[in-house]
Amino acid sequence: MCIISGGCSNMPRFAITIEYKGTNYSGWQIQDNAITIQGIIQDSLSNFFKQNIKIVGSGRTDAGVHSEGQVAHFDCNTTIPADKIPFIINPLLPNDISIIKCSEVSQDFHARYSAKSKTYQYNIYISRHPSPLRQDTYHRILTCPNINKMKSASKILLGEHNFKCFLSTGSSVINTVREIYQLDIDYNKDEITIIVKGNGFLYNMVRIMAGTLLDIGFGKLTEDNLYDIIQNGRRECAGKTLPAAGLCLLKVDY
Amino acid sequence: MCIISGGCSNMPRFAITIEYKGTNYSGWQIQDNAITIQGIIQDSLSNFFKQNIKIVGSGRTDAGVHSEGQVAHFDCNTTIPADKIPFIINPLLPNDISIIKCSEVSQDFHARYSAKSKTYQYNIYISRHPSPLRQDTYHRILTCPNINKMKSASKILLGEHNFKCFLSTGSSVINTVREIYQLDIDYNKDEITIIVKGNGFLYNMVRIMAGTLLDIGFGKLTEDNLYDIIQNGRRECAGKTLPAAGLCLLKVDY
Repeated sequence: MCIISGGCSNMPRFAITIEYKGTNYSGWQIQDNAITIQGIIQDSLSNFFKQNIKIVGSGRTDAGVHSEGQVAHFDCNTTIPADKIPFIINPLLPNDISIIKCSEVSQDFHARYSAKSKTYQYNIYISRHPSPLRQDTYHRILTCPNINKMKSASKILLGEHNFKCFLSTGSSVINTVREIYQLDIDYNKDEITIIVKGNGFLYNMVRIMAGTLLDIGFGKLTEDNLYDIIQNGRRECAGKTLPAAGLCLLKVDY
Repeated sequence: MCIISGGCSNMPRFAITIEYKGTNYSGWQIQDNAITIQGIIQDSLSNFFKQNIKIVGSGRTDAGVHSEGQVAHFDCNTTIPADKIPFIINPLLPNDISIIKCSEVSQDFHARYSAKSKTYQYNIYISRHPSPLRQDTYHRILTCPNINKMKSASKILLGEHNFKCFLSTGSSVINTVREIYQLDIDYNKDEITIIVKGNGFLYNMVRIMAGTLLDIGFGKLTEDNLYDIIQNGRRECAGKTLPAAGLCLLKVDY
């Protein structure tokens, strides 16, 4: 009996790494009446291979969120070598989606369940005026927060915690414990980059985390507040969910 | 008698610095039946100030070329302080054009004739597959050129030369002597950045220069060829005009 969803076949299994600019899509996950990244790739693969192909991603990304390293797997009855597949499929995809890698993997590889960690980046720039070249991939703030306060507070988030406070209300997830392996805040000229690596992330967790760190940088919240917020798990005590545009899924590790 | 175009008034003169993403425009310069950056800004200023405002840029940029630092001046009968003007005009501009600075300048300031130097950046990335997040602002090449050869050859271009070889055919400019003050080639991960500063640039000069340096990096041309090309001034001996998307006008110095 086969219990692995999307598996259960003798067809070769492929893992693809996908870069996309999420601006013009209703997120990763396939939906009725919406243009999604998963939907576009699935259609292109199905059309080319003349098979009904289902792709399984490492997880969802929201509308407007980008990726440099989303991973998905699919089974496909083909003898085309894996490394040739991007060259064949990319010309069939729109310019804002690109398969940057494809490998054949074993039948027990699962893009979601085999993932060991994910790394996200949140981009912020500081300017009184909008920057057209950064509008789709950065969040703009008007003045510079205290970066040292942000860096110091970020250490509190490292390790295993119940991150219920950083879970968007309405999510039905039960286990809200996650482990953060790395959280780097870089400040260069007028840009702040938050890079966070963990074993998994709750819905909107990175964007709320970034909003909370900014609140600390602007003195709206203190490190003591942050301890309390994690303790009490109340979403409304944490910072705002920052806009999707600033977020990019950098990498999924297996 | 007034001989400065666009001047000859007692109205205050303003200099604006403009960032734009050139992807969706037919370049800087106003044209009939085409959407241009100059045209859009002029219309917004004229509509807001209810005056017929003409803006004079530091020079043209081609369709698809970007700017982080284009400068233009205009005369306008207003008592609104200069530093407030971006806050008023930016909401009237499309998202891909932004006035990032405005100052009042003297009547003898001229965005084109007062410019002492300009700095351009040409962005290249190396990948077998397209990168959606870089598609509008980079030129893609498939394999890595010899960066040391490019750096070495770039030194030949420094200083004052007759750059007729880097002038697109069809241009009617007479004096093709320009001085290059700085030419830096940076290589980081999968990206090559060419930054060039000079007292002025001929039509397509930076894009042809970048194409020629790439040819040297790929061994299609040698340093000796480059000396010859500058000497003989023949456009057809130099490299290709690289695509507009990779080019950005970084800064104009006065």
